[in-house]
Amino acid sequence: VGDELERLATSIGHALRASDLVILTGGLGPTEDDLSRHAIAAALDVELEQNADATKQITDFFARRQWRMSDANLRQGLVPRGSSVIFNPLGTAPGILFESVGKLLVAFPGVPGEMKVMFEASVAPRLKKSGRAMASDCLKTFGIDESRLGEVLSDMMSRERNPLVGTTASGAIISVRVVASGASQEEAEGLLEADLVEIGRRIGEPVFARGEAALQDAVGGLLEKTGRTVATAESCTGGLLAKRLTDVPGSSEYFKRGFVTYSDESKIDELHVPCELIAKHGAVSEQVAVAMAEGCRLRGKSDYGVGITGIAGPGGGNPPDKPVGLVFVALSQAGGCDVHRYLLGDHLTRAGIRDRTAKRALNVLRLDLLRFSKT
Amino acid sequence: VGDELERLATSIGHALRASDLVILTGGLGPTEDDLSRHAIAAALDVELEQNADATKQITDFFARRQWRMSDANLRQGLVPRGSSVIFNPLGTAPGILFESVGKLLVAFPGVPGEMKVMFEASVAPRLKKSGRAMASDCLKTFGIDESRLGEVLSDMMSRERNPLVGTTASGAIISVRVVASGASQEEAEGLLEADLVEIGRRIGEPVFARGEAALQDAVGGLLEKTGRTVATAESCTGGLLAKRLTDVPGSSEYFKRGFVTYSDESKIDELHVPCELIAKHGAVSEQVAVAMAEGCRLRGKSDYGVGITGIAGPGGGNPPDKPVGLVFVALSQAGGCDVHRYLLGDHLTRAGIRDRTAKRALNVLRLDLLRFSKT
Repeated sequence: VGDELERLATSIGHALRASDLVILTGGLGPTEDDLSRHAIAAALDVELEQNADATKQITDFFARRQWRMSDANLRQGLVPRGSSVIFNPLGTAPGILFESVGKLLVAFPGVPGEMKVMFEASVAPRLKKSGRAMASDCLKTFGIDESRLGEVLSDMMSRERNPLVGTTASGAIISVRVVASGASQEEAEGLLEADLVEIGRRIGEPVFARGEAALQDAVGGLLEKTGRTVATAESCTGGLLAKRLTDVPGSSEYFKRGFVTYSDESKIDELHVPCELIAKHGAVSEQVAVAMAEGCRLRGKSDYGVGITGIAGPGGGNPPDKPVGLVFVALSQAGGCDVHRYLLGDHLTRAGIRDRTAKRALNVLRLDLLRFSKT
Repeated sequence: VGDELERLATSIGHALRASDLVILTGGLGPTEDDLSRHAIAAALDVELEQNADATKQITDFFARRQWRMSDANLRQGLVPRGSSVIFNPLGTAPGILFESVGKLLVAFPGVPGEMKVMFEASVAPRLKKSGRAMASDCLKTFGIDESRLGEVLSDMMSRERNPLVGTTASGAIISVRVVASGASQEEAEGLLEADLVEIGRRIGEPVFARGEAALQDAVGGLLEKTGRTVATAESCTGGLLAKRLTDVPGSSEYFKRGFVTYSDESKIDELHVPCELIAKHGAVSEQVAVAMAEGCRLRGKSDYGVGITGIAGPGGGNPPDKPVGLVFVALSQAGGCDVHRYLLGDHLTRAGIRDRTAKRALNVLRLDLLRFSKT
């Protein structure tokens, strides 16, 4: 037992004295460097023992998958005496829960997906029981920047107000989160709903979802509702738009097919982009984006065709006319074809430019579907 | 100034008394709920002032992009008196750095990409200066499980040993991290290199990279080295394999084209999969995976064709023969076609099954390229 274990045990002890709830994540794996269970036992000054529930969870996990189990995996069934185990539906490491005189200590595996479901099942219900009633939700927006949102919602974002309204940005998606409290659950929920309606009214079209949802979920819902179908032709995004559209369960209903036409040859072969067009305007051009969108719509026999061409970098840029981050998104349908030109800026990485391009394309599709579903 | 600001300021004060280095992330945005700069000023008991460097960084950021700047953005140039600013090359919020009698307090924006580069530029060099020389690196593995790795490396993973060897798992990629310390940098690096060689020898083919790299980086390197090219045909992964292959800058050299053939019709149209094959064996079958791989290789005029078909769920499963998580990956080349059947298990989400399928396909390609590059 080395220094590290001792330091970890000391930290757990400090945390337990200072707080009513201590959460550890990670360090529950099967290898020698997984120290959490040992450190908890040391902090509580108890022995580790093989827990029957935990052992059964582990052996069942392997048996159901007909996977080979090693002795190391069984070690994941060791828990500090006096604690109970938290079921892990997604992996081999059960969690640990220790409770004593108003203090709660829990340990989850470090894998985020496992941690989240286990937190929801074990700790979240205990937090809800205490204090005033709370209700919270968020609206997801795309295409409006955070400082503009701050202006539009400034009177609602005061820190003394109930509900509390705040914004967070991640990958160009800005979430507006509302947390309401009240003497009763009904009161909290009433305040929450009123704010969500008012915020939605102020922001308008950039709001694409309520709660945890991605742009492709909103687009998928609209495609399903309108019965329209889509095909894609991607150059710089390399399949990312098709991937996002098919992230959504049931997308086979409206996603017909996708082409990743990275080379000029494949644009000509698969999408019938005229080679003179590429010679004259270059592969990254409005004209080629339009031809790609129309080509994939006709081949895919779909209502919409989306064509994307651009320069994701880090190489391939040719400023000032064609810098890295220059992207064209075309949306073709029977009535005609719209094309959008974006300058995504050199502060983004290759991955960032590809991400933003796919999101802009999804949003172009979403806004058209919104108009279509209103007529 | 509400309760929340006061609590945050108190926490910062506590942290500064207990530690030599305090790092805050988030709360530097332009909106009312961004409290970090106010809380730091309160904890240090100083005023906020508009910092000239920070203001210049912000106005330059907007000017270079010809974006509209709001007054709210200028607020991001407020810093507690006596602190300096950390340049943010990727966004509008500069960081804050305050230093006093051996204590260092830094605040970064919450956006992970911005936080990381700013940490590397401001804090990392100060950490390196102190104490013994350190050297660390990691090996990335795929296709060997963590408990098996623990067995193979058990004697090297003792917590008293120098170098320290540990494993971490994320999305089926297991990293073996080695941290060596020594009296000099040369000594630390010598110990590190010796361990990396020994670990590589023990694990063998599952090691795909040293340092931070993804499977597609390893595959891309091998395709470049061998001069071979690839085309893809994807059903359940919906473009994810093409997206990963084209994550790599310069992938246009070896990635010819990709087909996302989600419907039966598109498999028949684009890849010439015989419709009798689909009728007889189903779209999720060994035979259809092989026909997809061969179809895309011939259409793409590439050396390799990769075909993927499977059931990503949550719907569409038909156990026991065709449960959710059943996936076929076929690799076609002039010499013939190999096909692999995987049961990825019902503990994974749709996203998890698609992720693992794309990784298995990349690994099938990698192992073939390894053999090819040796002959």
